[in-house]
Amino acid sequence: MGKNKMHTHSRHYEEENEWGCANWFEYTVVVVFSSVLLLGALALTLFWVIYYRDGFAWRDDVSKQFNLHPVLMVAGFITFSGFSVLLYRICRCCRRIYVKLLHTIFHALAIPCVAIGFLAVLDSHNLAEPPIPNFYSIHSWLGLVTMGLFVIQFVIGFFSFLVLLCCEGATAAFRAALVPIHASFGLTTFVLAVASCLTGLTEKVIFTLGNAYSSWPEEGIVVNTLAMVLVALAILVSFAVRSPVLHSNTKVYVTERL
Amino acid sequence: MGKNKMHTHSRHYEEENEWGCANWFEYTVVVVFSSVLLLGALALTLFWVIYYRDGFAWRDDVSKQFNLHPVLMVAGFITFSGFSVLLYRICRCCRRIYVKLLHTIFHALAIPCVAIGFLAVLDSHNLAEPPIPNFYSIHSWLGLVTMGLFVIQFVIGFFSFLVLLCCEGATAAFRAALVPIHASFGLTTFVLAVASCLTGLTEKVIFTLGNAYSSWPEEGIVVNTLAMVLVALAILVSFAVRSPVLHSNTKVYVTERL
Ligand code: HEM
Ligand code: HEM
Repeated sequence: MGKNKMHTHSRHYEEENEWGCANWFEYTVVVVFSSVLLLGALALTLFWVIYYRDGFAWRDDVSKQFNLHPVLMVAGFITFSGFSVLLYRICRCCRRIYVKLLHTIFHALAIPCVAIGFLAVLDSHNLAEPPIPNFYSIHSWLGLVTMGLFVIQFVIGFFSFLVLLCCEGATAAFRAALVPIHASFGLTTFVLAVASCLTGLTEKVIFTLGNAYSSWPEEGIVVNTLAMVLVALAILVSFAVRSPVLHSNTKVYVTERL
Repeated sequence: MGKNKMHTHSRHYEEENEWGCANWFEYTVVVVFSSVLLLGALALTLFWVIYYRDGFAWRDDVSKQFNLHPVLMVAGFITFSGFSVLLYRICRCCRRIYVKLLHTIFHALAIPCVAIGFLAVLDSHNLAEPPIPNFYSIHSWLGLVTMGLFVIQFVIGFFSFLVLLCCEGATAAFRAALVPIHASFGLTTFVLAVASCLTGLTEKVIFTLGNAYSSWPEEGIVVNTLAMVLVALAILVSFAVRSPVLHSNTKVYVTERL
């Protein structure tokens, strides 16, 4: 794509972005709501685990070690990843390359969370007395798919959108073609992560509360509320990513975000 | 929107639709795969319920009455709704108004399924000895949200895209503005339905198998496979709805589907 064409698009972009009140309203609502919910989900998970499930430990107490699993998974897959995705909608005036780097950094921060969170649940199965078999549940299959997609997204995204910048001109068309696919699968990964959390929470709450779950105990309501926050986030983030207002113009979107 | 403009768009549409091999390949893969999975999900649910859960009954046997719940919910929210959504991608040459009517009919068929499926689970709680409380679980909250969104989508869609056709010219801009919102919330409803099914399956399999679930029993694998089919469908349908190839051009998309 020639320099000339880029310029035309950039000008076009600035014109298009003469935002009216309604657009700013949508922007503010989405940004404020999703930030509150992203932090709220993590806070609620921490509250649940610390207040009702006795907090954390490492290998000397496997049932408390398990508690690291939901917290770290929510931190990595929801809070960090969610902010990372929203960055592209939040930062309207910074240079693209900065947004891109921040996007990478946020996702890179998610990696240790997910890795330790995964280790915690593996330990809590393998070191239990007697050991609990691995990967038998819908939740664990779903979790593996989510983590797999996350790794694929990260590796492909990293190479295509950062490493390939070394030969900017030659790879522009390729990168442009990849943007919608990357965005689409990124959203898919986020939604799958929410689905993983929902099934995980369902399992855990039934394992720990059993029949008492049906008598509306306090802990049950806390966990259900957390689940609803996650659902709201899935809807809000999908909306933000797909909103034509928030990314204003597909053509610019593609060329500007190479 | 003047007649002239419409014509320009229609011509543009035909030009854009000179599909190459790659596009037909994508089209065929998506259509064939999703049809197989949509029918497969229903077949697998039926197989699970009939073979492992002893089939159906009405009020004289509430535990068998419950079995209607997963089958009818999958039929209504997954199979019928899924085909209904895909219609817009499958029918590339029929007149829009026919596709629109078929879309409405498929969703209308989902309504009795969902209603009877909901009644079945309500009965299985209220008529049990002792009665089981209602709406205590993540799954039931999620189910209520899904059904609520479905009703809103149906009512708004019906009035906006069919009833408002009575004054076609005057409502064109309004309907055009509504298309992306309707499509976006439609996809959200579908994905929420999948999430409802995943949490419902997780609950049911833990309620019935208990600890045996972790020793990889046959029934567990069947249910997990059904869950994975549903996840694959969520990904495939999202992809089909959002694919720029499959709806070729946003502008045309908007004006052609008023
Ligand atoms: C995106 C987020 C998550 C991912 C990717 C994930 C992934 C996994 C995986 C792969 C396993 C299987 C470990 C094994 O079998 O050894 C597992 C187990 C488990 N997870 Fe998660 N998890 C997530 C979030 C959560 C949350 C929020 C909870 C809530 C408490 C949770 C609860 C559980 C439970 C109870 C188990 C053990 C039972 C089982 O294997 O199904 N998970 N998780
Ligand atoms: C989109 C599909 C679905 C929707 C909208 C839905 C909706 C609901 C609702 C609203 C309830 C609460 C009824 C009450 O508390 O009286 C419920 C209960 C239940 N559903 Fe579903 N359901 C769906 C699919 C499934 C599937 C596929 C299963 C798999 C077996 C399932 C299993 C259950 C179970 C075990 C209950 C009783 C326990 C509870 O209240 O959580 N559901 N469902």
